[in-house]
This record gives sequence, C-alpha cells and structure tokens, in this order.
Amino acid sequence: MVTTTWAPVPADSGFGVENLPYGVFRPTGGAPRAGVRIGEHVLDLAAALGDPVFAAPSLNAFLARGRRAWSATRAEIVSLLTDPARAREGAAHLYALGDVTLQLPFEVADYVDFYASEHHATNLGRLFRPDSAALLPNWKHLPVGYHGRAGTVVASGTPVVRPAGQRKAPSDDAPTFGPSVRLDIEAELGFVVGAGSDLGKPVGTADFAEHVFGVCVVNDWSARDIQAWEYVPLGPFLGKSFATSISHWITPLEALEAARVETPTQSPEPLPHLRDTENWGLDIDLEVELHGTIVSRPPYAQMYWSPAQMLAHLTSNGASLRTGDLFASGTVSGPERDQRGSFIELTWNGAEPLRLPDGTERTFLEDGDVVSLRASAPGTSGARIALGEVTATIGPTPA
Amino acid sequence: MVTTTWAPVPADSGFGVENLPYGVFRPTGGAPRAGVRIGEHVLDLAAALGDPVFAAPSLNAFLARGRRAWSATRAEIVSLLTDPARAREGAAHLYALGDVTLQLPFEVADYVDFYASEHHATNLGRLFRPDSAALLPNWKHLPVGYHGRAGTVVASGTPVVRPAGQRKAPSDDAPTFGPSVRLDIEAELGFVVGAGSDLGKPVGTADFAEHVFGVCVVNDWSARDIQAWEYVPLGPFLGKSFATSISHWITPLEALEAARVETPTQSPEPLPHLRDTENWGLDIDLEVELHGTIVSRPPYAQMYWSPAQMLAHLTSNGASLRTGDLFASGTVSGPERDQRGSFIELTWNGAEPLRLPDGTERTFLEDGDVVSLRASAPGTSGARIALGEVTATIGPTPA
Repeated sequence: MVTTTWAPVPADSGFGVENLPYGVFRPTGGAPRAGVRIGEHVLDLAAALGDPVFAAPSLNAFLARGRRAWSATRAEIVSLLTDPARAREGAAHLYALGDVTLQLPFEVADYVDFYASEHHATNLGRLFRPDSAALLPNWKHLPVGYHGRAGTVVASGTPVVRPAGQRKAPSDDAPTFGPSVRLDIEAELGFVVGAGSDLGKPVGTADFAEHVFGVCVVNDWSARDIQAWEYVPLGPFLGKSFATSISHWITPLEALEAARVETPTQSPEPLPHLRDTENWGLDIDLEVELHGTIVSRPPYAQMYWSPAQMLAHLTSNGASLRTGDLFASGTVSGPERDQRGSFIELTWNGAEPLRLPDGTERTFLEDGDVVSLRASAPGTSGARIALGEVTATIGPTPA
Repeated sequence: MVTTTWAPVPADSGFGVENLPYGVFRPTGGAPRAGVRIGEHVLDLAAALGDPVFAAPSLNAFLARGRRAWSATRAEIVSLLTDPARAREGAAHLYALGDVTLQLPFEVADYVDFYASEHHATNLGRLFRPDSAALLPNWKHLPVGYHGRAGTVVASGTPVVRPAGQRKAPSDDAPTFGPSVRLDIEAELGFVVGAGSDLGKPVGTADFAEHVFGVCVVNDWSARDIQAWEYVPLGPFLGKSFATSISHWITPLEALEAARVETPTQSPEPLPHLRDTENWGLDIDLEVELHGTIVSRPPYAQMYWSPAQMLAHLTSNGASLRTGDLFASGTVSGPERDQRGSFIELTWNGAEPLRLPDGTERTFLEDGDVVSLRASAPGTSGARIALGEVTATIGPTPA
C-alpha cells in the first residue's frame, strides 16, 4: 500500500493514509457531513467522491452498504490522497480540524457492553466478593455482557454531568438519594456494526468482518455507589445509563490488519460456536489521562475474549443485528497495576489513592476533572496509527 | 364524552369510541400508514385528518408532538366518529381489519424492562434463592430494571423461534449449547414514550403523562435455562434478547382515565423523588391463553410500583428519554396461583405441570404452542375497553 500522501500529515500524527478513520463534521455555517481524517484535516467525502451517502449527519447509510462497499470506498480515498496528480482536486475538499465541529459519528441502534478482560473481572470479583472465587462460573465459558442505554451514548467532548442516584453503604440503615460519590471511568474499545443480520440467524465468528465496520474508543462512565446498590439481580442500570462517551472517529477494521493477534490461551476451550477461525485479538494500546497525567496504559492484546467471539455470542440466540449497533469490550485491564482501566481498580476501591503531579490525590472523580482516553495500534508500514480520543470534563449534579 | 359512533362497532367489542388505540397498517397494495382502531375497522388518519404526519410507517413523528397534540388529535377523531353528519366522509377512510396488514406501530428507541410485581419477584426469589429472603434488599426502595434489546422487539403475530444458547444444570460438569428447553413467557404491559427529555434533566412522577403516550401489551419471552446460566453478575442478556412481542395497538393514556387507581401500599415510603403525586396504578386485567385455554388472569392493579415511578427512576440519574422509548412493567403476577404471569411461576419451575383440556401437560413451551396475551380496562362509560392482543406461535430452532 502506498503510504505517501500529498496531504499535510505531521510526523507521528497517527493519522496518515494507513489510518483514515471516519467521522461526521460540521463546517462553520454548513450542514453535518461525513469525512475521513488525514493528519489535522478532514476530507469531505460527499464532495470528494461525489457520493450523496456521505452528505448525511450520520455514517449509518454508508455503514449499511457492507464490506465490499467499505473496501472499495477506502481504496478510492487512498487513491485520491496518494496520487500527486490529484492533489489540487483533493485539497479543495480538505477542512482543517480547527475549522469544523465534530459530532457523534453514527446513530446508535442497540448498545451492548461486554466484560471480556480476565484481569478486570478478577479485580472486581476480589473487590466485591472477597470470600468467593474471583471469577464466576460462567465467565470462561461465554463473554458475559448486557445491554446498555443507546440514547445516552454521546460524542467525545460532551460534558458528563455527575449523576444522582440511590446508594446504601453496608453501614447505612436505609438508602439515600444524592450525587454519586464514586464516579468512575471504564476504558474500553467499541465495535460498530455496519451490516445487519436477520432475526433467527446467528452470525458465526468467521463472519465478524462482514458485519463489523470498525472500532472506536469508549468511556463507559460508571457510578459505583449507584451500581452496587441497584445491580442485583438484573445487572447494572442507572449506574451506567447517564452517559457513555465515544470517540469522534471510527477506525475501519481494514486499518487494523497489522494489529491482529491471537487472544490469550482460552482454557477450557470454548464451545464450537464460540471458537475463532481467525485472529481477532487486537494489539491496541490504550492510555488513560487525568488532567494531563497518564495514569494507566491498558493493553487490549490481553483481552480474554475476541470481538468476533462477542459478536457470535450476542447473536447465538438468533438476535438480529442492525446498522449502528455498538458493542463495547468492557473495561480493558492488564495484569499490572498501571494497566488497569478503571479507578476502582487503580485505587483498589479507594484504599490506595493515586497521587497526581500537582500533589492532590484521587480515588474517584471530582467535579472539574478532565479524563481523556486514547489508543494506538501498529500500522501496516510499521508506524503506529492513532484511534480517536475520547475526552470529557465532569460537571456537578444540577441543584 | 359522546360514546355513540356512526361507525360499526360490535357489542362488547372493547374497541368503541372511548378506546381508539393507535397502530400502523398497510392496506393491500398500499404503503404503511397510521390509523386508530374502531370496532373491527381501522381509520386511515392521514386521509381522515389530512395530516401527513400519519402517512408514515411509524407513529414516532406523531408521538414526538407531545401531550397537547395527542389530546387535540384524539378530540378531532372522536368528533369525526361521533358526528352523524360526518358518517359518509369518515366511512370513506375506514378499512376492515381483514383487509389490512398490521405492523410494529413505532420504532423502538431504548427498551427497558422493570420487575415491578412484588408477587412475581417473591416467587422468583423463592424459586432461585430458596435459602435467603425472597426479595432482595433494594426491591422495595426502587423499581429494579434493566435494558433489553430494542432491535428484537417484534409485532404480535411474528413467529418466535426457539433460541439456542448455553445452559448448565447444577448436575452438569460443563455447559452445553442447544435449543432452550425452558422457554417461557412474561405477561407485561409496556409504556410508550412520546415526548423525549434532555440529558441531565430527570423527569419527575408528576410529569409522567407529559412524556408517556400510551400502553401496549408485551410478551417478554424468556429462556429460563439460558438466563439462569448467564445472568450473574450483569443480568439477563441472551435469555431475553431473541424476541420481545408487543401488541399492534397503543392505547393512549387518555383512554385509561377510568382505570387509574392507587398502587398497593408502599412500605417503606419511597424516597421523595419516587413518590407519586397522582394515581398511576392501573386497574387493567390481563389474560394468558395457551391454545385457546385461559391459563392465568394477572391483575395489573396489584403492581407494587407505578409506571410514573418507573419513569422517574429511569431518569433520576439524568438519563434522557427519546421518542419511541419503551419501558415494560416486568411480569404481572397476582397473589393467586391462577394470576401468575409466567409458566415458571404457574408450574412452580416445572414441578406442577398445567393440564390442558386436550389432556396434555405443559411446564414450559413446546414448538407449535400458540400463546396470546390480552388485557382490558374499565372505560369511562362503564363498558370495558380492550387493549391490543399479542400472539405468537413458537417455531423450532433452525437446524
């Protein structure tokens, strides 16, 4: 693949022509439309390719076209950006990122969140159920997951308002209602379904890339006090549903070829319908930044279940997929302390506060805190490619 | 209110002019459009009212207009149907139900399922956790709920394919994968959100009728074996997500004025944000029919939490509402055995099979079984009004 483009790409930008993630942007005074990011610019696809599917406020219609169309479009864009003879033509359709507003790139249909990190599940098991086995009996037999709220998936940059809710400490006689005092992050990757499937027709692991278009970065905000009180027996609800932030950019699977790795050894071997036929583990490195300090570097390559296994499980009962379905990995945590993807793990439930360079300590998030998640992966040329960033500032609960 | 209409309404039809539920129908050779049911006919609203909002394959755009518009439209329809001078004009826009195809009446945004029957929650607690208190500690402090899969909400009449899935009996060494052997129903009511709300702005119980348009009947199909193995710690997922059936007709809240009753006494008193300011208990009687035999008559009036409390809880963390959000009550079960809304309760986990008139017995559902749920409520004139029916036939898992 030619990786030299006439477009301006800063050194180590992570957004060279190997990457080309899709998003939706609004130029000043213009209508929202789809684009791909190249360096610090975005290419207006409707204008550059003359395809009206991109003159829309979401990627959904394009996503619905399926893998062949995704691949052909990517080839067209690469051709435009790498042909010196087309530099003048292409440059006319570039906008500087500073001149546009980015927005939610697709309409979320159903949102599912998995729990696919063995290290995360083990840490939470130790914290919440210290007297029993850390992993529950089903954990190594299926990728545990649940449905979240699609309507509160928001784009990076949207402020996150501290949720109020019911909570009851073991020492309290009765629950109280008020702003969460244990607001946390979950650093995750999200997988965006492009091509849907029919009700009653499971999608096998081998068909993963026929349905999943690409990957975004996800912060699955979690109010641990609300969650702890509400979650039996039907699972997390209001402890999660106030907001889930995703990056502005969706990196297509095609850009992640060099990141594909085997998952860690799975023992016991999964049942036949959950066996991977290809490597869909992903060697993607995440980082968690609080006020400019990197507090964790969760390694996605350590995730026990692959996204192809998650998709196969999700549809194994015949559930259909729709364009815009989003499923997230669950918190990415590695084996080391500085690889944990949530503050409840990083501070061991608040017992071991993080010390920041400004001398302050953190257990859970405070109003005004700014959290950014980033991720990067090996590109086909050896240089790393960047996934979109997801950032938010915590705002106080309204009075 | 005038309840005499020129339209043909059979005696005891339950679909007189006091009712007027909304749905979406397709006449032979025509495009889908919105209508209200009157007797055994449906009134074509786009044609009768001259409002293009009804010339659409879903009710969503109408639902988004809000309570004043809903009320004004209802008044217009009543006026048309009760004015003898307009009989000829109106009759031109009536279709016999036998000449149309009914479909899903609205696009479901997010789907939430609650667990609001004390009798149901107690029964399930006894069955699943015989050695501890039947109700978990949070149950009387908040209406427990979780998100389900919006993309697999289907209309009455859609066959339900028996899901395959992982299950593990306590006596098994390892889980197996195959067709569910414990397929069950859950007889519920569903509440359809019309007017949305902003992120970060909770909706109080007093604003229930500003946001909720109406009520449908819901069968929340449940594969108990899949559910039992998967549900810790994140709640039900594939045991539910293969299908949720809803009735074709949405009965507006305005038609249910005479059904409004107090909920049963709530003790302890709920926290302030969950206190009802009006009666939103509903004196609606459900019935569960299997192959033509009524096997249960669950009384909705016995539900512990009101739908206004469910909505207030759902948004208490600032989660926004969207037009088309659907929240269901959870299984409606009364205190008596023949008032239980699921087969796991009716047959006490299979230990006490139901005997049908044909001499066969049922614990859970068999392929070919036909289940219908119906509901009715007192109308303002004293006659009962019918809610839509939800029916499905169980089909075998595809090979």
